[in-house]
Amino acid sequence: MKKVGILLCMGIIFFQNIIVSAADDAVSEATAECIDCHASIHPGIVRDWQKSRHAKITPQDAMAVDGLARKLSSKNVPENLKNSVVGCAECHSLNPKAHADTFEHNGYDIHVVVSPTDCRTCHAQEAEQYSRNIMSHAYDNLAANPLYKKLELSITGSKTRNKDKIVYEPANAATKAETCYYCHGTKLKVIGTETRDTEAAGELDFPIIEGWPNQGVGRVNLDGSLGSCAACHTRHAFSIEMARKPYTCKECHVGPDVPAFKVYAASKHGNIYSAMNKAWDFKAVPWTIGKDFTAPTCATCHISLLVNTDEEVVSERTHQMNNRLPWRIFGLIYAHPHPLSPDTTVIRNKNGLPLPATLDGEFATEYLIDEKERETRKKAMQAACLNCHDTSWVKGHWQRFENTIEETNGDIRLASEVMGDIWREGLADFKANPFDEAIEKKWTDTWQLYANTIRFASAMGGGGDYGVYAGGRYQLSQALLEINDWLNLRKKMDISANK
Amino acid sequence: MKKVGILLCMGIIFFQNIIVSAADDAVSEATAECIDCHASIHPGIVRDWQKSRHAKITPQDAMAVDGLARKLSSKNVPENLKNSVVGCAECHSLNPKAHADTFEHNGYDIHVVVSPTDCRTCHAQEAEQYSRNIMSHAYDNLAANPLYKKLELSITGSKTRNKDKIVYEPANAATKAETCYYCHGTKLKVIGTETRDTEAAGELDFPIIEGWPNQGVGRVNLDGSLGSCAACHTRHAFSIEMARKPYTCKECHVGPDVPAFKVYAASKHGNIYSAMNKAWDFKAVPWTIGKDFTAPTCATCHISLLVNTDEEVVSERTHQMNNRLPWRIFGLIYAHPHPLSPDTTVIRNKNGLPLPATLDGEFATEYLIDEKERETRKKAMQAACLNCHDTSWVKGHWQRFENTIEETNGDIRLASEVMGDIWREGLADFKANPFDEAIEKKWTDTWQLYANTIRFASAMGGGGDYGVYAGGRYQLSQALLEINDWLNLRKKMDISANK
Amino acid sequence: MKKVGILLCMGIIFFQNIIVSAADDAVSEATAECIDCHASIHPGIVRDWQKSRHAKITPQDAMAVDGLARKLSSKNVPENLKNSVVGCAECHSLNPKAHADTFEHNGYDIHVVVSPTDCRTCHAQEAEQYSRNIMSHAYDNLAANPLYKKLELSITGSKTRNKDKIVYEPANAATKAETCYYCHGTKLKVIGTETRDTEAAGELDFPIIEGWPNQGVGRVNLDGSLGSCAACHTRHAFSIEMARKPYTCKECHVGPDVPAFKVYAASKHGNIYSAMNKAWDFKAVPWTIGKDFTAPTCATCHISLLVNTDEEVVSERTHQMNNRLPWRIFGLIYAHPHPLSPDTTVIRNKNGLPLPATLDGEFATEYLIDEKERETRKKAMQAACLNCHDTSWVKGHWQRFENTIEETNGDIRLASEVMGDIWREGLADFKANPFDEAIEKKWTDTWQLYANTIRFASAMGGGGDYGVYAGGRYQLSQALLEINDWLNLRKKMDISANK
Repeated sequence: MKKVGILLCMGIIFFQNIIVSAADDAVSEATAECIDCHASIHPGIVRDWQKSRHAKITPQDAMAVDGLARKLSSKNVPENLKNSVVGCAECHSLNPKAHADTFEHNGYDIHVVVSPTDCRTCHAQEAEQYSRNIMSHAYDNLAANPLYKKLELSITGSKTRNKDKIVYEPANAATKAETCYYCHGTKLKVIGTETRDTEAAGELDFPIIEGWPNQGVGRVNLDGSLGSCAACHTRHAFSIEMARKPYTCKECHVGPDVPAFKVYAASKHGNIYSAMNKAWDFKAVPWTIGKDFTAPTCATCHISLLVNTDEEVVSERTHQMNNRLPWRIFGLIYAHPHPLSPDTTVIRNKNGLPLPATLDGEFATEYLIDEKERETRKKAMQAACLNCHDTSWVKGHWQRFENTIEETNGDIRLASEVMGDIWREGLADFKANPFDEAIEKKWTDTWQLYANTIRFASAMGGGGDYGVYAGGRYQLSQALLEINDWLNLRKKMDISANK
Repeated sequence: MKKVGILLCMGIIFFQNIIVSAADDAVSEATAECIDCHASIHPGIVRDWQKSRHAKITPQDAMAVDGLARKLSSKNVPENLKNSVVGCAECHSLNPKAHADTFEHNGYDIHVVVSPTDCRTCHAQEAEQYSRNIMSHAYDNLAANPLYKKLELSITGSKTRNKDKIVYEPANAATKAETCYYCHGTKLKVIGTETRDTEAAGELDFPIIEGWPNQGVGRVNLDGSLGSCAACHTRHAFSIEMARKPYTCKECHVGPDVPAFKVYAASKHGNIYSAMNKAWDFKAVPWTIGKDFTAPTCATCHISLLVNTDEEVVSERTHQMNNRLPWRIFGLIYAHPHPLSPDTTVIRNKNGLPLPATLDGEFATEYLIDEKERETRKKAMQAACLNCHDTSWVKGHWQRFENTIEETNGDIRLASEVMGDIWREGLADFKANPFDEAIEKKWTDTWQLYANTIRFASAMGGGGDYGVYAGGRYQLSQALLEINDWLNLRKKMDISANK
Repeated sequence: MKKVGILLCMGIIFFQNIIVSAADDAVSEATAECIDCHASIHPGIVRDWQKSRHAKITPQDAMAVDGLARKLSSKNVPENLKNSVVGCAECHSLNPKAHADTFEHNGYDIHVVVSPTDCRTCHAQEAEQYSRNIMSHAYDNLAANPLYKKLELSITGSKTRNKDKIVYEPANAATKAETCYYCHGTKLKVIGTETRDTEAAGELDFPIIEGWPNQGVGRVNLDGSLGSCAACHTRHAFSIEMARKPYTCKECHVGPDVPAFKVYAASKHGNIYSAMNKAWDFKAVPWTIGKDFTAPTCATCHISLLVNTDEEVVSERTHQMNNRLPWRIFGLIYAHPHPLSPDTTVIRNKNGLPLPATLDGEFATEYLIDEKERETRKKAMQAACLNCHDTSWVKGHWQRFENTIEETNGDIRLASEVMGDIWREGLADFKANPFDEAIEKKWTDTWQLYANTIRFASAMGGGGDYGVYAGGRYQLSQALLEINDWLNLRKKMDISANK
């Protein structure tokens, strides 16, 4: 009895040693020096890294992997990086001249903020795809759109009272950084240097970075690149398991404006995931439907390289993400075909507003993908569905989804029509800001909260309570009636003139 | 060292082989033929099935199990099915003439939609019990109740504007299928045939089914039966583990109208489940309190066969479910004793409306279970509680629960009284539709969202924030005040006459 | 092959036997007698206990543990308890004379409700710390504050209608016990004795306890002590694993008034926890950052004894909890420095109201901790952060958090200013009850729901959707506009005088 136990223990110890020593051998001198101090100062992240793939394999070995299992997409990796595992120094001292936050640290040129351009060294394809992802432009897509800025102002702005009106001033940087730009990404800027008395090494200089910390998907980095890979590939484990589980997406996709996680968690897919995922393999590359998992997570449908049990590719890996998405279902103010360019600041509707549709729902088609591209993307998405569902199931699901896009757009058209009357009657002021009065907020509820929720429930759950009572059609109907009620009351009072 | 590792690996491979070959031996020729193509076309569901109990045991062997561990409740199973495991063909070609969607498929008569009558072949008791479950009648209980139809219309209906009014037209089939009937179940109907060019076998014919896909609890099937076992026993693993975990119930019981999952997840029971369930046995039949689990899930209290550690039966298995439930806590408009019949369309209140209570809360007692039956059901439920809680705890909990039913019914009576004044004053129109104006929706909030939430929090959590600030008494109180405020304002304006 | 399997099985059985027999040896005679009956009557809790540490180690052995791993903090334990494991009788018959619910039960003096004073026998330090925790005073902090009682009345009170007003009467005991006092704790009182016919032992007498069951954090116990250790250390496993997982805190910290769990679950920390915690060690004492876990749970930051991988103490264990908290972020009506005393009934603001700030946000500083103490507490909290984040990250996070406290307090000041006008105009009645009219409830929304949610999102998530669209700044802005809109309409109607 005892003997087996001992043998087993020794086996485990033996395998652990192999891993540790393999990694240790290939740790660069620079990284080893980092770890000398940081292992005790920052045990949380150092340990995460030590358990990571980055700590266990060199680019050279990663490039030797053939076929679909290959994780390093760059064709070449600089000679000096090839034979060390990817440690602290490998990333934090890459391209030092390109990074405005590079500072001298114990004899090394270190930068704080690692950027997609750094990651591109090994992961060229992913970085390239991500640059075409609308998320990578999330900062300017909000900050450089004058109309969206008004919406932002009416939510996060600093409020004062001027006579009988609530007046908004732009929020300060701290507020901005923890609201919209928490997910969209902040614009980083080095604004000085500070000297800190550190326990490990006495007085040291560090850059002061405006907008830091941040891991938003469209962060404007100190080398000019856009995005943060750590938004989804959480530092410093960069675990594919974590990125493939739905909690990663939840960080930004859970609120009523974009309730993807909530809807998923209450769907049949979410049920299967929650109940059974402990037996799934979240690390396999490629990811085999049926063998590694039996229901999709967010990553399955939107990003991952999928194969069937015959090892045929079902879906190519993509970090552009929207190339499986014909429709943008939480766009402002209407759901609409996906924009052609990830930079949406170029879009103008028929009335010259920076919106993908007019206020009565006519699409700015020249800036949006056409029907043929929508068809291509639909097929790309359905390729995954068809591994568990027959054609009639998938067709039925999709027909309902497109019907819901049309129906919700119709409801918003109606809400906007009533709102139009309110603006025309002078009961609210469109020009100053169409989002900053009580009745305008109720109108905003209809499209930004309820119509979005209904569409997510349709897309990711095939329906259910999130499309009805949980911020769905019930609340959309109610808000529409209340807007109409508000107008009717004021009409009866005949106070439109002297508002 | 190595030797043990190798031996272990070989052992695992060996055991896997046993499982696979045992199953393979008993796979019918027909099912083997299905799998030939579908294993690559639909790897997700085929693999789920391969790991399922259905793929591993024949009805013959299942019938040989004695006592409480027996899972197959039918006394007899047709000879031709006895000695094959339960595969594709066994279910999808049962009773071919009864199914309107039966079609010729590679030489077999196949139907797409498997029904409770099909499952009844082996699971007679469960099917019989489920036919007495109010859920099995969920389609007509909504679709054939003229008053509930008005509520449905005011939520999912297609909206237009007629002068100063929002007007509703019935929703189209696609909208209906992904809203109320997603959970209640759709009415399936074969409306034609289509030819598809399949990759595996060229051109093939398939039936076109209206209302498909759907897995709602009261689905009207193509053999006339009611319900979908797959609502809870997710295809094609039909895993008892999944059905016993609370995520299955969450699919339909999470929204503010029926927040069972949310309330459970924040309760002491939910806490224990979430933190500790990885060490529980979700597959054991019977399910032993204390040994297999130490806190209940939904299934524990409502469905499962429970025994104590002396192997005495604590609760009988039931698929009727409400035979442990004295009260219906999310009924319209008041909580009320459970209906006598699962078909609630027969109910009429004193005023002739198809409701289990009048608008001022008087029960339609002749259609509802009496006090004696309520007492029996209460005892049946408490039998489980008493395995972890002493009598005074259980009594205290129950007394609060029944007090909450009474108090919330009282609150709704008051809200309905104010609403009655609004209708009498002509400020809203009861007759046309009591649910489709702004102020009527706020009244609907009080009973359909808040009173329901309060009762669920009481029943499943013993109280807590879901009964107070999270859509509970705080919001109920607020809505009541707002209804009153709305009326008072209009009274002051003296606009009741000229509305 | 088979041989290894058998050896493994035997090994497991062997180890199980060791555990069971070790415990059995040290079970007191009294506890053994309890178990004789209760093992079958209450298998759920008896099995929980059998798997617990209490069932496996005697106080004597627990006291022999040296250094940081020690879990029993009392310096001495009474002789008669030292050498038995901590079973039923050890807790339920401690200090029998002190407990008003002590009753004769099969020859033993048993009390139903175990109190912190009982637990103090072995866990002196924790009990002492907890007595300084504001939670231990949660009963009177609500029940003895006349202003908070008005808020409570306006939520849980029994409602009637008097002319055009909704009038509140105090809720009955059952309602109170499942609302505010479910979390705050009830006041227990023995009000009689009842005789029950038990299956196991015929007729037996039991005390009748008002306010039972309850496990609220500030429960007033039958020995006069305050609190319930079982609120977090769930009976009868008292599992440190469960207490350290976030679901325990969720029981009371999930609603929109105090959404700690929701915010955490959507944060980067929550993502890491959800995706990776199955590989963490939740039982290790002390708890080593990086080794046992790589992202914090609630307990990590607020309670647990943390060490780094060099085994240096990072944070001392505390059951006072707020000694790492400078700010109380869900206080009424403003966020404010933490109170000096856990008994907040002593606080009076400048206007004599029992509030930590005036209605326009001026702190009652003499009752609150000063800047120096806030600095100490901030440093105590940041000590944990700095194990995974560099100084600039932690500083940046904290600066945003304090900015958010200031900004949200500013928003509430503005909402209260508008509300002040409403009171002054006679459109609502502050004196009778500032919380019980429709417009007052909307004002309450701004601080009790939205400002709280914004602050939690900032503190525990660094921002994100819960601070914007999910009950955050969007809704705060909307409610403020609606309060203003309400006032403007009534001003236009000139109905302030004749309200």
